[in-house]
Amino acid sequence: MANVLEIIPLGGIGEFGMNCTLLRFGDEMLVLDAGMGFPEESVYGVDVCIPDFEILEQYRNEITAIILTHGHEDHLGALPYVLKKINVPVYASHFTLGLAESKLDEHGLLGDVLLHRVEPRDVVTIGSFTIEFIRASHSLIDCFHLAIKTPVGTIIHTGDYKVDESPVIGEPIDLRTLRRYGQEGVLALLSDSTNATVPGRTPSERAVIPAFEEIFAEAKGRIIVAAFASSIHRLQIVLDVAQQFNRKVCVLGRSMQKNVEIAERLGYLDIHDGMLVSINDTKHLADDQIVFLVTGSQAEPRAALYQMATQIYKGVTIEEGDTVVLSARIIPGNERAISKLIGFIYKRGANIIEEKRRLIHVSGHASQEDIRIMTEATRPKFVVPIHGEYRMLFRHKEFVKNHLDYAEENIVLIENGDVLELDGERAAIVDKREIKRTFIDETGFEEIEYETVRERKKMAYEGIVTLFLSINRTTNELAAPPQIIAQGVRGFPSIGINGVSKAPSGGAILKDAELAVDAAIAGASSQTFKDPTLLKEHVRLELKRFIQKETGARPVIVPVIRDLG
Amino acid sequence: MANVLEIIPLGGIGEFGMNCTLLRFGDEMLVLDAGMGFPEESVYGVDVCIPDFEILEQYRNEITAIILTHGHEDHLGALPYVLKKINVPVYASHFTLGLAESKLDEHGLLGDVLLHRVEPRDVVTIGSFTIEFIRASHSLIDCFHLAIKTPVGTIIHTGDYKVDESPVIGEPIDLRTLRRYGQEGVLALLSDSTNATVPGRTPSERAVIPAFEEIFAEAKGRIIVAAFASSIHRLQIVLDVAQQFNRKVCVLGRSMQKNVEIAERLGYLDIHDGMLVSINDTKHLADDQIVFLVTGSQAEPRAALYQMATQIYKGVTIEEGDTVVLSARIIPGNERAISKLIGFIYKRGANIIEEKRRLIHVSGHASQEDIRIMTEATRPKFVVPIHGEYRMLFRHKEFVKNHLDYAEENIVLIENGDVLELDGERAAIVDKREIKRTFIDETGFEEIEYETVRERKKMAYEGIVTLFLSINRTTNELAAPPQIIAQGVRGFPSIGINGVSKAPSGGAILKDAELAVDAAIAGASSQTFKDPTLLKEHVRLELKRFIQKETGARPVIVPVIRDLG
Repeated sequence: MANVLEIIPLGGIGEFGMNCTLLRFGDEMLVLDAGMGFPEESVYGVDVCIPDFEILEQYRNEITAIILTHGHEDHLGALPYVLKKINVPVYASHFTLGLAESKLDEHGLLGDVLLHRVEPRDVVTIGSFTIEFIRASHSLIDCFHLAIKTPVGTIIHTGDYKVDESPVIGEPIDLRTLRRYGQEGVLALLSDSTNATVPGRTPSERAVIPAFEEIFAEAKGRIIVAAFASSIHRLQIVLDVAQQFNRKVCVLGRSMQKNVEIAERLGYLDIHDGMLVSINDTKHLADDQIVFLVTGSQAEPRAALYQMATQIYKGVTIEEGDTVVLSARIIPGNERAISKLIGFIYKRGANIIEEKRRLIHVSGHASQEDIRIMTEATRPKFVVPIHGEYRMLFRHKEFVKNHLDYAEENIVLIENGDVLELDGERAAIVDKREIKRTFIDETGFEEIEYETVRERKKMAYEGIVTLFLSINRTTNELAAPPQIIAQGVRGFPSIGINGVSKAPSGGAILKDAELAVDAAIAGASSQTFKDPTLLKEHVRLELKRFIQKETGARPVIVPVIRDLG
Repeated sequence: MANVLEIIPLGGIGEFGMNCTLLRFGDEMLVLDAGMGFPEESVYGVDVCIPDFEILEQYRNEITAIILTHGHEDHLGALPYVLKKINVPVYASHFTLGLAESKLDEHGLLGDVLLHRVEPRDVVTIGSFTIEFIRASHSLIDCFHLAIKTPVGTIIHTGDYKVDESPVIGEPIDLRTLRRYGQEGVLALLSDSTNATVPGRTPSERAVIPAFEEIFAEAKGRIIVAAFASSIHRLQIVLDVAQQFNRKVCVLGRSMQKNVEIAERLGYLDIHDGMLVSINDTKHLADDQIVFLVTGSQAEPRAALYQMATQIYKGVTIEEGDTVVLSARIIPGNERAISKLIGFIYKRGANIIEEKRRLIHVSGHASQEDIRIMTEATRPKFVVPIHGEYRMLFRHKEFVKNHLDYAEENIVLIENGDVLELDGERAAIVDKREIKRTFIDETGFEEIEYETVRERKKMAYEGIVTLFLSINRTTNELAAPPQIIAQGVRGFPSIGINGVSKAPSGGAILKDAELAVDAAIAGASSQTFKDPTLLKEHVRLELKRFIQKETGARPVIVPVIRDLG
């Protein structure tokens, strides 16, 4: 164990979201980022997921700090949940801390944690680790690459980045410092793979300005721009172009308002006096003096854009003459919903500018030629693709191998839970930890047990039948006929949700099913009858057979025995 | 009512799938296509959806025939369900009937229905309607445009099409006949909008041949081609290129095997003797002599490709050296699953050819310049965009208006259920019928009631609590303490699925909830207690309040009262 560094990704590998990586040397451990994810289980009442931080318990006395590269939810969102387990100092940039504070406040944690604000070029030593925070460029502002000197060599963690020489807000990527590390020697580069399938360079944040200027010049009515609330460069562009075309901006949607407030308060957004107006103010403005800057680019049903397109949102609805600008990428999985939303907007008679038709969105992540620049600047011994689905990680590897002349053994593909050991010469996966996901119900920041979600899935698929048996244990007889309650079962009438009884077609089947259970009980041996577990399994199987034979359905069946007498 | 034609779309407008349109003149009605859709409700055990054909009851004595443009599931899949309601003759092409027969056979309907085989250029008169079947080109074979002469004018229904002058199988699109109708005068063109957002021309089915030849020339190991089972042109190309490179083809996946069998039997696929081999045969071949032609391009978990990528499918698994060709588009909604599947395949060490990197898939639908050719050939008075989400329909309208010089009032946007009335001069939506969807569980071709799916959705979201009250009506007292069963409720222990009792953390809350119900009953007025409906609503509300206060959860609550004594 002497003189080896361990890298253990808890999330972000083979999936989007939940970025979190442990870095361990001896008995010291850093946590790099603490992100949440947005799981496909949303239909089962799951709002977000986070890595199962159970593993941190084992290192409770070793963890010295949490380092955040930037403030996107997939890097920051799980911070409260980590801090609830392990309260250690957090290091992050000014703006990242602004977002973190807001989040910790919601969780009631703000007073209890130690937050360290760091600036680009700051160097912080935490035990055996010396961390330099290097200015990164990304779709968000105030982002870092991390250069972490360890006793076995320097690790560079890119965080999320693209090579943007002309960001809208702040300074460009600090390639000079990255190159300095490259010259001094970098052991491993943990490198963003999101766009590793995309050839060429990712355009600068500024690249969308001409299209916005054109759109603003053409639009005769109101303009509605939907963007990610965290795309602060983009928000600044909208504010600037609005100013240029004598329009005022009304910000709608909770997260957009929050981010604009934080970014303005911390001095990142440059907003002219009187530029921001309330909904009420817009009523006194001509249509061609208004821009709505709104949430909902992913067609989230509760967000501003969807509401404005389908009904009235705070008095505003999309109308003929409006120009709607979808200034965001489509997150995979949202295609159908967004296409529907666009249909609703067309139906309202508005004009829509979609991404594909004009350059109104650019990615924040490194394309292949950005990856080339990063890799050539840092010249790592080992390239470790992170942050992406396997498809992206493999394509990242393929690109580095074929176009940057790295040998196969110097590109290390890891998975969540892998323990990657580095001794300065060699990189090897020496262990595999199982890292599950934890589901969260964001309404109360409550965890949803995995088993609970599993039950919901099963019920969702074919419904549930609850079977009540009242047994008189004195006489060892049924105290009352069996009673069956079906919910969501094909071919079965339900006691309606909300307790209102309904008896749709086919009520007879309930009676027949109860008779089948009666028969099953009559046929049970006295030994079975006496053992509740055996009896439950016996009637469950018989009822299952009956239902499947009669209707083909395979609902969840829950037998309940009540002992009376 | 005299001398007007009604067009009533039952599906396919504002959505993908469920294409079905009624055409009515006087007391005669044609059904054009009968398609199924693939709803987002699949997590609720719904396999497919079809239009609610209840509306057909009203026209029971008027419907004279069902006309099918082609054999894709979104045009053919609901045929058995329509025929179960209204048994009328079906007109379709040779190959379409091949698919229809197979489907009707599965439903046990084959002997009971009248199927008319028609050829291109056939003209059939059914009452007031005279229908010419015109050769269309598409990704499927043996497809039709319909030219329907009615007393108020000629309607052309494009079906699905692209303008393909060089299909792989069969003759090109019959533009000559379409132009003849254009010269004679077309009242309305019902026109495929699927690719109305796409500029330019859609490439010919042949366009993928060079990429396939390259891939086959490069591949050193086995080749696995995943394609839509219905892309018969594509299957022929794979067979031809395999022949050229001395490989044998093994077809895997039920629908692929079925379609190859039908297409070969009916003489559409040209297969050399000995070209098709079984899995067993492949064991005696060298890797570079094998092509697997498989289902599963959409990452369906039970299809061949997914199985081969994640485990062993009939003895075959994807291995290092294999080349996997994804020769299909990504159907919106499947992006995440397909990206994951690609990751699995990379992990196996195989090479993957994805659509974006090479021309290995072409669409079967008309792009904007195809739409131009169709519209200019038929010169309709009215253009009626069909087959697509609203987004596509609106873009279709926009294109026709801006680039083909149609006046706004000559482009008619309709929705499912609209009654579009045409009198030869005027087109007007005169009524709106509500057309719901019907959900189908394909395991038994059984309908799933809408209410059942609604219940599943609610239970899926926050779980369900069933509350049992046993009341002795003689004494008007509880005959036993209340009993609460929770499934999938956050913070509540469940009686496990399969009847196995479990008591995870927090078992106390069940007891507390039962006490809360006790208290609610004690507090109920005697009037409430006597009325089961009032009593159920009373305890439901109290229990709801208790659960929400204690855990924040909002499960479905089903109170059940049993009268004893």
